[in-house]
Amino acid sequence: MEKKIPYKIYLNENEIPAQWYNVRADMKVKPAPLINPATGKPMTLEDMNPVFCEELNKQELDNDNRYIDIPAEVLDFYKMYRPSPLTRAYFLEKALGTPAHIYYKFEGNNTSGSHKLNSAIAQAYYAKKQGLKGVTTETGAGQWGTALSMACAFFGLDCQVYMVKCSYDQKPFRREVMRTYGAKVTPSPSDTTEIGRKILAEHPGTTGSLGCAISEAVEAATKQEGYRYVLGSVLNQVMLHQTIIGLETQAALKKYDIKADIIIGCAGGGSNLGGLATPFIGEMLRGEADYRIIAVEPASCPSFTRGRFAYDFCDTGRICPLAKMYTLGSQFIPSANHAGGLRFHGMSPVLSQLYHDGFLEACAVEQTSVFDAAVQFARTEGILPAPESSHAIKVAIDEALKCKESGEAKNIVLGLTGTGYFDLYAYEKYNNGTMNDYIPTDEELTEYLAKIPKVEE
Amino acid sequence: MEKKIPYKIYLNENEIPAQWYNVRADMKVKPAPLINPATGKPMTLEDMNPVFCEELNKQELDNDNRYIDIPAEVLDFYKMYRPSPLTRAYFLEKALGTPAHIYYKFEGNNTSGSHKLNSAIAQAYYAKKQGLKGVTTETGAGQWGTALSMACAFFGLDCQVYMVKCSYDQKPFRREVMRTYGAKVTPSPSDTTEIGRKILAEHPGTTGSLGCAISEAVEAATKQEGYRYVLGSVLNQVMLHQTIIGLETQAALKKYDIKADIIIGCAGGGSNLGGLATPFIGEMLRGEADYRIIAVEPASCPSFTRGRFAYDFCDTGRICPLAKMYTLGSQFIPSANHAGGLRFHGMSPVLSQLYHDGFLEACAVEQTSVFDAAVQFARTEGILPAPESSHAIKVAIDEALKCKESGEAKNIVLGLTGTGYFDLYAYEKYNNGTMNDYIPTDEELTEYLAKIPKVEE
Repeated sequence: MEKKIPYKIYLNENEIPAQWYNVRADMKVKPAPLINPATGKPMTLEDMNPVFCEELNKQELDNDNRYIDIPAEVLDFYKMYRPSPLTRAYFLEKALGTPAHIYYKFEGNNTSGSHKLNSAIAQAYYAKKQGLKGVTTETGAGQWGTALSMACAFFGLDCQVYMVKCSYDQKPFRREVMRTYGAKVTPSPSDTTEIGRKILAEHPGTTGSLGCAISEAVEAATKQEGYRYVLGSVLNQVMLHQTIIGLETQAALKKYDIKADIIIGCAGGGSNLGGLATPFIGEMLRGEADYRIIAVEPASCPSFTRGRFAYDFCDTGRICPLAKMYTLGSQFIPSANHAGGLRFHGMSPVLSQLYHDGFLEACAVEQTSVFDAAVQFARTEGILPAPESSHAIKVAIDEALKCKESGEAKNIVLGLTGTGYFDLYAYEKYNNGTMNDYIPTDEELTEYLAKIPKVEE
Repeated sequence: MEKKIPYKIYLNENEIPAQWYNVRADMKVKPAPLINPATGKPMTLEDMNPVFCEELNKQELDNDNRYIDIPAEVLDFYKMYRPSPLTRAYFLEKALGTPAHIYYKFEGNNTSGSHKLNSAIAQAYYAKKQGLKGVTTETGAGQWGTALSMACAFFGLDCQVYMVKCSYDQKPFRREVMRTYGAKVTPSPSDTTEIGRKILAEHPGTTGSLGCAISEAVEAATKQEGYRYVLGSVLNQVMLHQTIIGLETQAALKKYDIKADIIIGCAGGGSNLGGLATPFIGEMLRGEADYRIIAVEPASCPSFTRGRFAYDFCDTGRICPLAKMYTLGSQFIPSANHAGGLRFHGMSPVLSQLYHDGFLEACAVEQTSVFDAAVQFARTEGILPAPESSHAIKVAIDEALKCKESGEAKNIVLGLTGTGYFDLYAYEKYNNGTMNDYIPTDEELTEYLAKIPKVEE
């Protein structure tokens, strides 16, 4: 007899995985190394240690170890808000009239409101262990900055956040959460860094960009004794820490003998999708199972679907290493798009290589349709989703409706990365019917793509 | 050997209690009945049915049935966000250096952000079952309005919320959540009701009050075919539905053979405290166990500690029934106090009677000390608490520090009613050091207390 699947599949805390999974160990074609823009050669530990934490750099360069132990202190912190539930969306299924089974892995049940805390606490731990005074970072939508503030408060580290100015002004509540956790939040561009002052002089009225905030945070880290720079997405180490999502999902599915057919995640820099999907992709790489993995990106910032697989800068200021990834060009700035977490011009090198090699597919969706899905989800499943997460919801609903057509009872797993509690401006626009669906034209994209540097591999 | 207590004690969904607990059945001295202001006599079903839902009125008047079945549809909805975890505050204990064991029952893991959803879904269910088109209500802080919007969306009911005007203006995000769930939100006082127009004419610049919003919502319910008025606190039925909190807490404690010593809840209208504590008080009433139950109220609105136990109106407009309760007088308006959910002038008649009979104690705490506790909790336990909940945290910390002095390992259980994600204005004031701790003077209180009507019992 089939086991009755509960609404929420919880693991016990001793079932939280004790190791992160490193998909690079299973990849036949490894992701291309980061390249030092000064030397044109692959980044070494010596190149990276002045900017990033030492242990994290080792993880960044580790293409060999399949599993990496989660430190006990990080595991303890995980137990405060993990395991996160894998929820069967019974009510959404009913509303859709689909035979498909929809599951969502919900990462929003912590104050940062998203999965970002999974990597933030790991990065703060290694910074503390290295004896650092503090860390610097940038934040756009604010989820990463909030998560890092929480993590730093926990370990007694100073936390300096450069927050894109338009977010700083539009999201005062995000700022206050960070301040409540003791972080110093500076609107970027600011006059606290050379690069900030330069940008302000050239563009006096600018509201900032993520690329600019990255440049400021890196400068701030390197100019202060005992500080390093940390980053919440794109990097290999972040994909690694976020695999806690996918590993827990696998454990929960296993409890009820559920075989996932389709795994869906939103994709900005790739941290959530990588975390959710790479443990499943690992099974594919090892020939153990097969899945459809779908990356969903906003049509306004379509790096997978309309970008180029090439070496490019990670920041607008072009001071960070070059990464080989799907990119729209480091000068690309997406139009006003309320999914603040999906505005990055590039994509995780790991996911980029896997996409290039056919292990995942990608699609781009328009904003209004994403909010249609978000509201349907909110009203049936009770959770007001983050705009980012809602990209995955949109495609999960589409797939479930295809199942309705075909009569197939597929198992669809989607990553519900977080809540929309700090995104109500966007919901207000949607509720008022004033949301826009701007998509870059081919001419615009061509111009940005042309600025991608030529790098010899 | 003692079982290792996990960070979070989760129940399985089939361990969610199938019945609510009605403490009135165990009370030797029953709470005094509501009185009809028109007749001066106890409210009957016939008096109540034109305003409130029929099944809920039966529950309101039921002093006899100890357990009342939770309808299957409500239980299904509960499974979307319940059971809520009972969490051991290991990190807070460590930060305090106390031998006490602190547990918190966290009700904030749903989009309404609080326990209010427990009663909202029950009330919406009975309204739907009665064949109503919709319901009206008022909301101050916005938690109840949000919860009711979610519940109405689920059952396809129209939801009309009168939101205190100052909240409507100061909390646009709360408003947008309600709109996202399809509710019609009207700032109160409004020109949509007679009482609203009257108040606007008399006080053109008023920013509204909960009492005024209640009056408008009641008028709106009675003037529309197929509508009834619903309320999120104070009433006996609300205490009943909220016992799901305390019953789950008992089940979780039992799993690990934990005997609570002190149970602490914040008290505004009493819905959370009543829900958490009355199942434990039931054990006391039946002579099965003994507990210290502590009600924590804001010093700015101290109905238990400085009010009078007397019949009084529940609303400023004096159109609602009279309830015998601890009250500061229906004309009392607390000073600016950021715990929006704890501003009601009265208190649940059930809790009032139990307090009068010595089954719980009460204390009043000042706002800045509450936020000190909130921030300590946020930084150690990861959850940014609602200002309301933080009242309970403050006293739990005080009790834990007393245990540190005495060396006692008491088990302290506190009700963490919700999250502070929509209260960042208050946190901002705290972070900026501009919070105030106004406490009403004896002279002020005497004036309000003198306006309590004389009612013959």
